[in-house]
Amino acid sequence: MRHTISVLVENKFGVLARIAGLFSARGFNIDSLAVGETEDPTVSRMTIVLNAEDERILEQIKKQLHKLIDVITVIDLTKKDFFERELVLVKVAFDKSNKEQLEKIIHKFKAETLHKDKDSFIVEATLGHEHIKEFLSALKEFSIKELVRTGKIAIPK
Amino acid sequence: MRHTISVLVENKFGVLARIAGLFSARGFNIDSLAVGETEDPTVSRMTIVLNAEDERILEQIKKQLHKLIDVITVIDLTKKDFFERELVLVKVAFDKSNKEQLEKIIHKFKAETLHKDKDSFIVEATLGHEHIKEFLSALKEFSIKELVRTGKIAIPK
Repeated sequence: MRHTISVLVENKFGVLARIAGLFSARGFNIDSLAVGETEDPTVSRMTIVLNAEDERILEQIKKQLHKLIDVITVIDLTKKDFFERELVLVKVAFDKSNKEQLEKIIHKFKAETLHKDKDSFIVEATLGHEHIKEFLSALKEFSIKELVRTGKIAIPK
Repeated sequence: MRHTISVLVENKFGVLARIAGLFSARGFNIDSLAVGETEDPTVSRMTIVLNAEDERILEQIKKQLHKLIDVITVIDLTKKDFFERELVLVKVAFDKSNKEQLEKIIHKFKAETLHKDKDSFIVEATLGHEHIKEFLSALKEFSIKELVRTGKIAIPK
């Protein structure tokens, strides 16, 4: 099952390495991770997305996270009601034959064109999980020159 | 000096822990980190922002990163020309006296209101580094109930 875990940590040296180490020691691969400061610059929030095949091991990891020095709270948002968003930046190449199609996709997903070249656009899109998938799937017929994603962040309703 | 480092890695178990460990072993605190899949699901891109007091040590870390198994490329974007964006989700409380002011800020920064309650909004904004700072600074007069940031991602021009 896919989990979204929000971890509030003291913004101190080594916290990220300890947390990443906890997951990797138990054989968990993290699908995406976003770490940024909160309203308090001494505190950061990590949003971790992962696929747990063994829920019991994930429960153990969450307990161990709680016990870590510098970890303030651990919330598994999976069963909670929350808004989720992800930002993607993508450089897409086009030619005469498919430029219009690309512009339609950009419009449909309310994406923003940051830069226009004669044969490529740099596009920014902020979308929920399902729409990100649809957006990237719609771009599959184009040549993607570069694609950068933030990983998902989430905020409880 | 503030650095933005983009690291392309094989999407394999333990890579994140090894990379985070490299930085923390040298006493570097990471300001923000965003990890997400690229157009190739077996490959992820990490965007790391940090403040390097000792540039020589950062050079050593970049060399060590290059040598890590599962690390494909390491690019320090700091002196390059790139677009940078960050996504922030924020739950802001208001009252009669400052609701209008909040709506002005949302409009000014082209933020989007995801959810409206009688005394709070959940707002999404995707902005460049300087504008994020201005946006969060403008919100300082309000009570912030929750704030989640993705960390910056960047794409070369």
